[in-house]
Amino acid sequence: MTTSSSLQPPSPARPSSPLGLHRVIDPPGVLPQAAWRLDTDPAIARDEVRVRVDRLNLDAASYRQIRETYAGDPDKIRAAVLEIIATRGKMQNPVTGSGGMLTGTVAEAGPESPLGLLPGQRIATLVSLTLTPLVITDSLYRWDGRSEQVPCEGHAILFARSIAAVLPDDLPVPLSLAVLDVCGAPALTMRVVKKGSVAVIIGAAGKSGSLSVAAARQAGAARVLGVVPTATEAALLRDTAGLADEIVVADARDPVGLAAKVEAAGGPADVTVVCVDVAGCEGGAILSTAPGGTVIFFSMATSFSAAALGAEGLAADVTMLVGNGYVPGHADLALDLIRTTPGLRALFERRVLAEGGKP
Amino acid sequence: MTTSSSLQPPSPARPSSPLGLHRVIDPPGVLPQAAWRLDTDPAIARDEVRVRVDRLNLDAASYRQIRETYAGDPDKIRAAVLEIIATRGKMQNPVTGSGGMLTGTVAEAGPESPLGLLPGQRIATLVSLTLTPLVITDSLYRWDGRSEQVPCEGHAILFARSIAAVLPDDLPVPLSLAVLDVCGAPALTMRVVKKGSVAVIIGAAGKSGSLSVAAARQAGAARVLGVVPTATEAALLRDTAGLADEIVVADARDPVGLAAKVEAAGGPADVTVVCVDVAGCEGGAILSTAPGGTVIFFSMATSFSAAALGAEGLAADVTMLVGNGYVPGHADLALDLIRTTPGLRALFERRVLAEGGKP
Repeated sequence: MTTSSSLQPPSPARPSSPLGLHRVIDPPGVLPQAAWRLDTDPAIARDEVRVRVDRLNLDAASYRQIRETYAGDPDKIRAAVLEIIATRGKMQNPVTGSGGMLTGTVAEAGPESPLGLLPGQRIATLVSLTLTPLVITDSLYRWDGRSEQVPCEGHAILFARSIAAVLPDDLPVPLSLAVLDVCGAPALTMRVVKKGSVAVIIGAAGKSGSLSVAAARQAGAARVLGVVPTATEAALLRDTAGLADEIVVADARDPVGLAAKVEAAGGPADVTVVCVDVAGCEGGAILSTAPGGTVIFFSMATSFSAAALGAEGLAADVTMLVGNGYVPGHADLALDLIRTTPGLRALFERRVLAEGGKP
Repeated sequence: MTTSSSLQPPSPARPSSPLGLHRVIDPPGVLPQAAWRLDTDPAIARDEVRVRVDRLNLDAASYRQIRETYAGDPDKIRAAVLEIIATRGKMQNPVTGSGGMLTGTVAEAGPESPLGLLPGQRIATLVSLTLTPLVITDSLYRWDGRSEQVPCEGHAILFARSIAAVLPDDLPVPLSLAVLDVCGAPALTMRVVKKGSVAVIIGAAGKSGSLSVAAARQAGAARVLGVVPTATEAALLRDTAGLADEIVVADARDPVGLAAKVEAAGGPADVTVVCVDVAGCEGGAILSTAPGGTVIFFSMATSFSAAALGAEGLAADVTMLVGNGYVPGHADLALDLIRTTPGLRALFERRVLAEGGKP
């Protein structure tokens, strides 16, 4: 049906947009993420990169929806994923709207690609599969349909403004993927935390949380407080000696209780980073932050209106940032934190294990 | 049933919290906004203020819900609002969760209140009715139930961290209220826009939008672009000569189209301010902003995840701010902009008229 991308001759020039607008087939004019269908032609433009794909990492919500729809039947699950990709030219679950990421090897990099990738490099994409042109050529025969990890063959296209990270040789791939998945959080934390300040990380024993604790420390925070929901999580964080100065066990959904405990532990914060995927943490984060301070919301469970109206209702003069998953240099920064922060890698590996992955 | 607040003797000291936690009856320990029931005792703590209320300005969504539930029957509408306030000790619609604001006269200010209010001053509250202890004493007999504006008698309590603005003598009350309702937007715009920068205001002919245009100009922006959805809105903005340098007619929900038009008009923006209450404007705002720039989201229709994932998907290194309705000095700043910006008051009055109010 499709030729293997590695057999393609060098591609001729074709007009392109850094955002991939030239790959949008239907409806015309929208961004690739909003498109119903993308052009998967393996011939790349001068600023594109073609990747030989070896694995898809499906978004958890998308995988769950498909698995439940087909009652776990592997053949039907495989067929459903193949059907989506063949129809849409990308892996975007029409029900959940979500995608995932992929790993593969650079097959061809256009001479004007700004991504700095070289043929043969093993990479992970850090932009969503929902905007990445994708072709699968092996019928997913190696996938048992029982996991979000989908071994496969095929090709994908990266645009000039796509983001990809070269997978490091010195770390196991599942560990690197878990780090790259949340690498925006430590990068933005590093940018916002000032030397000598007090940083409070809510959800400090999680993946984005523990990286943000390490980033706050590296940025020169005088005091880093890690907030966790349970004694078990506190123990996990405590095992990573020296990562957080103080560990606060508190329910982040209780604004008054959280703020009181943060204050007792050396708060309020100059910078509060919300890394816990639970709804209702806006008020507690705002109340734990000093006037003139900053709250960074990284949790996808954040409610825009709860944050905006909450700060107004508390007359809180705090700057509130939407956690942008993209900060230049974020991948390298996060991988370096894992390498250089004592204990952080061990904590991370336990997290990855707990999620059913291999460390 | 209740004594008029103006007849109260000076209040004795009672223990208090700046956030009003001491007024929370049920459930104990939550913030006043989250409480089911507040204590409306007219005796104030040393840091509280008691207000003689003369008007409630119900939140539009709340009023609509009540009116529709009772098919516009004035007696039933009045009874429903009275019942909510008597039961909860505050005006918070249990269905919509929203409240509104009030105007009144300062009856008594505790000696430790930081709000700087004096007895006899006419004020508007800038914190929501959903967290303001309130008693109504006149059965709302002067309200016909046909408008969100509710003339009334009663009392309300302000906490140390409440926000209230003294209504100016030189502006009509409905105009002042309309300005105060959106005064956070120009204040934050003023704080973020740097001298010599390019500012793009999306929804520039609206209330928060036109104030933000004026604020960007006053902050020293080299170029202010006003984005409006229609030629009618463009004409409204154009009549206010000199407010915006360029007027861009574009659909803010079309990222590619918007960014192209903004670019053609002198963009991209160093600061983009989203003031239009329409869903789906996140991508366009991000794409219209230069790398390293800032997007301020003031629209309550903003989706947190659309903003976060949108920036990541576009590899856009932009700072994204949740528009905080509270910035110190925001009320005076906005009222001064209305007084001193040529044409802005006229535009605003036309907006207020169009919404069915008196200018």
